[in-house]
Amino acid sequence: MQTEKERTDHLSCDTCGRRFEPGEVEMTCPDCGPGLGTLTVHYPYEAIARELTRETLASRGEPSHWRYLEILPVSERPGALHPRVGWTPLYELPALARSVGCARLFVKDDGLNPSASFKDRASSVGVARALQAGQAVISAASTGNAASSVSLFAACAGLRCVIFVPQGAPEAKLAQLLMFGAEVLAVRGSYDQAFDLCLEACGRQGWYCRNTAVNPYLGEGKKTAALEICEQLDFDPPDAVVVSVGDGCIIGGLWKGFCDFQRLGLIERLPRVYGVQAAGAAPLVAAFERGARAVEQTVEARTLADSICVGRPRDHIKALRAVRESGGAMLAVEDEEILEAMRRLAREAGVFAEPAGATGFAGLCRMSREGLVGRDERAVVLVTGNGLKDVQTAIRAVERKPQAIDADLPALERYLAGLVPGG
Amino acid sequence: MQTEKERTDHLSCDTCGRRFEPGEVEMTCPDCGPGLGTLTVHYPYEAIARELTRETLASRGEPSHWRYLEILPVSERPGALHPRVGWTPLYELPALARSVGCARLFVKDDGLNPSASFKDRASSVGVARALQAGQAVISAASTGNAASSVSLFAACAGLRCVIFVPQGAPEAKLAQLLMFGAEVLAVRGSYDQAFDLCLEACGRQGWYCRNTAVNPYLGEGKKTAALEICEQLDFDPPDAVVVSVGDGCIIGGLWKGFCDFQRLGLIERLPRVYGVQAAGAAPLVAAFERGARAVEQTVEARTLADSICVGRPRDHIKALRAVRESGGAMLAVEDEEILEAMRRLAREAGVFAEPAGATGFAGLCRMSREGLVGRDERAVVLVTGNGLKDVQTAIRAVERKPQAIDADLPALERYLAGLVPGG
Repeated sequence: MQTEKERTDHLSCDTCGRRFEPGEVEMTCPDCGPGLGTLTVHYPYEAIARELTRETLASRGEPSHWRYLEILPVSERPGALHPRVGWTPLYELPALARSVGCARLFVKDDGLNPSASFKDRASSVGVARALQAGQAVISAASTGNAASSVSLFAACAGLRCVIFVPQGAPEAKLAQLLMFGAEVLAVRGSYDQAFDLCLEACGRQGWYCRNTAVNPYLGEGKKTAALEICEQLDFDPPDAVVVSVGDGCIIGGLWKGFCDFQRLGLIERLPRVYGVQAAGAAPLVAAFERGARAVEQTVEARTLADSICVGRPRDHIKALRAVRESGGAMLAVEDEEILEAMRRLAREAGVFAEPAGATGFAGLCRMSREGLVGRDERAVVLVTGNGLKDVQTAIRAVERKPQAIDADLPALERYLAGLVPGG
Repeated sequence: MQTEKERTDHLSCDTCGRRFEPGEVEMTCPDCGPGLGTLTVHYPYEAIARELTRETLASRGEPSHWRYLEILPVSERPGALHPRVGWTPLYELPALARSVGCARLFVKDDGLNPSASFKDRASSVGVARALQAGQAVISAASTGNAASSVSLFAACAGLRCVIFVPQGAPEAKLAQLLMFGAEVLAVRGSYDQAFDLCLEACGRQGWYCRNTAVNPYLGEGKKTAALEICEQLDFDPPDAVVVSVGDGCIIGGLWKGFCDFQRLGLIERLPRVYGVQAAGAAPLVAAFERGARAVEQTVEARTLADSICVGRPRDHIKALRAVRESGGAMLAVEDEEILEAMRRLAREAGVFAEPAGATGFAGLCRMSREGLVGRDERAVVLVTGNGLKDVQTAIRAVERKPQAIDADLPALERYLAGLVPGG
């Protein structure tokens, strides 16, 4: 399953540090197992630093994350993958910065990816690797953004896509996958059982596995958001980067991106990265506060932010390492703070986010109250998914309802004069 | 309500041709009234042709429709409007081209705009004009994409936004507007009554009116999709451009864009433009087939493609003129063809479209059967809205359902061997 022209140099185990040549292992370290033995991808940075400079990047017209091909685990820009992924906008929001209390505030809207979530960064890389390896089937266990995203890219690439979901997953969540032609297997059991069956199936059937954390190359796709942030800020990274956390892959990927750019000499310093979990699904916050390097106990997760409703985070090692190494933190916010963040992002930034997408901003608001971000600092908040993914929660978030009025001008004028009672 | 630095040269009535200086009229020709007296915006093309060349455009980094500022009715790029509108991807789809039977086929995905529809092009221009004129309130009658779009841009600009909807509009459709902080007035009456009350209110209260057709500047925003198509195809326009039609504003705007670029010498020839309506809401098709230049009768509209479910098209004059002048046509497709187009766009192009968004592609499929597009021709289909806007219809469009299986490998293997009955 090795690619012809492998850009990577080697892999290393996140727990024992063991080094693997490209192609030597598939997914995780055989000594440490899938729970602790997630792998990190390394490149020949010195050689790449000569090719990938601020100047060469400036000359690239490509408005997608394939502009960073030299540090992606894909031999060439995948021509069969049409959808434009990445290079999402970074909005500066002076009014929000004032109200939060930092010098400058930017929001990166990853809801504008092809399947309307950040996960497209990882899925596009996963499908590209499956194609390069000549595989015909890609599989994942997910009910959410990762599944719809991999379905989209598999459809474009002509790969068969098998998605494992727990039985009872809401039909609306499945509509997008089914539209993209994925085969959806509703497993009689929990999400964890669906996940384990998917892993077994990939092993037995030789399918390409697009499961969070166990596939080390997905994080390489996720890191591109960090690279874009650097480039969009003229290679002067912010002081703090804040993002919601479920399995921990996104925050791990972001940190990897900043570190890669520093190793290439493209940025001089690194930001602090902060992970925000919903209080009802915060095993990484608990582990961070205990000083642990891994999550040892699965919690029963409960939050309205379904995309981060994770009781057993699969990329815990990388996530905890990212916040510790960077000098950031893991913190938790209540569901009410998430709803408030959704309203503020919509009204003050024009960004309609799904609950998990707004959780990073909820975290920044709390950080500013707790002094974790300074008045002279610059912060970037990542919005990971579009609010259209979960309209029901948006309805719950809005406090104002439509006002009924009669179809004539006097009725309107009474309303405008404040004379119409609430509808 | 005139802007300080007006880029436009004059306006002309679409019916009587009367010429108006900028600022002389607000919305429509006083002689012909709002039904027939829609206006067309003209620029000082000769002067602009010196500034706006292929070379100056190539040097613009701006990945948004503000790159065409010289031929937009806005004095400067609106800094307060953060959201990145336009410059949506144009995907080439060789396999779909072969199956449709044309030489090259491109899909422009306008579902990747900030509020997930094409309408952002118009709303961003409308809000910019309201701001320039110093107005504090913008208003529209709509339950759909135009409303959520104007709510978004009004929120970013700090304008009060009043939306008129007919009572009974589905809550999910309203969630996005309410999130953006719009005031939603549910009028006890039909959509037409809500529209008329909105027009009256704008007149009486002095609010800025963002209503389709009656505001001539909205089409100027819509034309930018045509400009982008030209630029993305290296100024060699396609032979045919196909788009869904409800009120007729988008097709009118597109045609204006192609004509503007031709007048500026940026393209040498014009494409034929084709408008596609749902068979149950096709008053423009009927008028086209009758050879009429206007729609005379309101029909009772019925189609699952809610964004084009229009019985009384407000921009009929421009829409009919666009297809006639260009040598194109108006045609109708059945709802079943729209559902099939949704599936094909998703599975073969990775584009998840709302029903109206896929209607243009359904039209192209029919055109190819009827010989309206040649085997040696290049066609562009515009996708006007994201499928996440209407998940219920997507559920209806998918023919395959999830397959229930037990949570063990033998059960999976029985399924893969084709031994599991349909779930």
